[in-house]
Amino acid sequence: MSQDRIDALEQRLRVLEDEREITQLLATYGPLVDSGSGPEVADIWTDDGVYDNDVVAMHGRDDILAMVASPNHQGFIGAGSAHFNGPPAIRVTGDTAVAVNHSLLVLHRDGGFVVHRATANHWQLRRTPQGWRTTVRTGRLLDGGELARTLLRNGALGELPPDVTPA
Amino acid sequence: MSQDRIDALEQRLRVLEDEREITQLLATYGPLVDSGSGPEVADIWTDDGVYDNDVVAMHGRDDILAMVASPNHQGFIGAGSAHFNGPPAIRVTGDTAVAVNHSLLVLHRDGGFVVHRATANHWQLRRTPQGWRTTVRTGRLLDGGELARTLLRNGALGELPPDVTPA
Amino acid sequence: MSQDRIDALEQRLRVLEDEREITQLLATYGPLVDSGSGPEVADIWTDDGVYDNDVVAMHGRDDILAMVASPNHQGFIGAGSAHFNGPPAIRVTGDTAVAVNHSLLVLHRDGGFVVHRATANHWQLRRTPQGWRTTVRTGRLLDGGELARTLLRNGALGELPPDVTPA
Repeated sequence: MSQDRIDALEQRLRVLEDEREITQLLATYGPLVDSGSGPEVADIWTDDGVYDNDVVAMHGRDDILAMVASPNHQGFIGAGSAHFNGPPAIRVTGDTAVAVNHSLLVLHRDGGFVVHRATANHWQLRRTPQGWRTTVRTGRLLDGGELARTLLRNGALGELPPDVTPA
Repeated sequence: MSQDRIDALEQRLRVLEDEREITQLLATYGPLVDSGSGPEVADIWTDDGVYDNDVVAMHGRDDILAMVASPNHQGFIGAGSAHFNGPPAIRVTGDTAVAVNHSLLVLHRDGGFVVHRATANHWQLRRTPQGWRTTVRTGRLLDGGELARTLLRNGALGELPPDVTPA
Repeated sequence: MSQDRIDALEQRLRVLEDEREITQLLATYGPLVDSGSGPEVADIWTDDGVYDNDVVAMHGRDDILAMVASPNHQGFIGAGSAHFNGPPAIRVTGDTAVAVNHSLLVLHRDGGFVVHRATANHWQLRRTPQGWRTTVRTGRLLDGGELARTLLRNGALGELPPDVTPA
């Protein structure tokens, strides 16, 4: 009977550890991208991971590295930026997971700060030998568009996003 | 002695599981309300749950459904909105809990984004057969009013809110 | 063999408990400081804890109490403020830890809300007999300065901050 209880404890602990690892992974995105840490940002994704937002669709780590190094992004962080990600809701199912959160892109401008973007983020993740990594992050501006709302809903329910034609 | 250690592990794990479940529950509020998912928003509360803020006092799930369906809320999400909730501090005591967080209501306006509201949130929760649910959420605009500050303080200390006359 | 499994469970649980305690500690900062709860804010730090930002460098709890009581801070909360802290990424190593997050200072002004500051925060923490406490919090405005970016990067990697000459 002790064995059964220990088995159960190990399974319950595994659930918490998975969510904790995903929470930590996502919490590093903002600090890493705002410090221009390209390789470490790319390492949040799998080798063939996708980061699709309404500005650019990135496929694989080289595309993500290029985004961090781009004049656009370097302009943001050179003037001052906060990629402020909210706490994610996470649903783990075996070796895959879905997470959802809001993010704000806050920019330093004219001596003050403005909210430049507010985005709906749907994250798909996979357990890899190196730990949890993102396979697809789909982000859309919260400008009233249907897709952004569907990303939020599906993410909160632990469901996959709708078919998205990458930008 | 193994039994004692297993007992202790089960109790410690229960504490983490309770906080994790409440964290997840609260993290779904923003994505669900910004996607207009009325029934799922209402299911964050108990059947007789209260959501009292300085705009409206809702009693029971039908009131919450009506808020999500209201022209005011539909106008927010139709134009683009982020009900951006910060990470909660949570205090669990047996089968009840208190949580506190800030939230921002960020609206899409004139091609940009503005912080329309910044709110102090005090959450009371109860363990139910269906899992943790909110019994009372009390929110007040952070406009310098005393009640908003008391909600933050009491929530951070794990205490109940002061007597509030619902709006 | 059961003993080994129980040993392993206890160690894994300890890791989660440490991170959970630090998460809770940091989540109380905003609600406590926005409610003017000086002693409770100071208790987030060790007795000789440091809170160094680009406005003021505080050494020890009395300095933190003085900040909360200052006309500047009282002016913020009297008019309405949200010290909105994002979810931290945390790295625990034995009895010390490093955490990193963004924070926004949102102020109520002219009937609306503005993002007055966006800050990079690097937290150093230590396990004490009373629980985890902050030994050094270093914050810098995200205005494009190099130090703010280094705080974010080092924090996300679980590293100490660079040598900082306090303000």
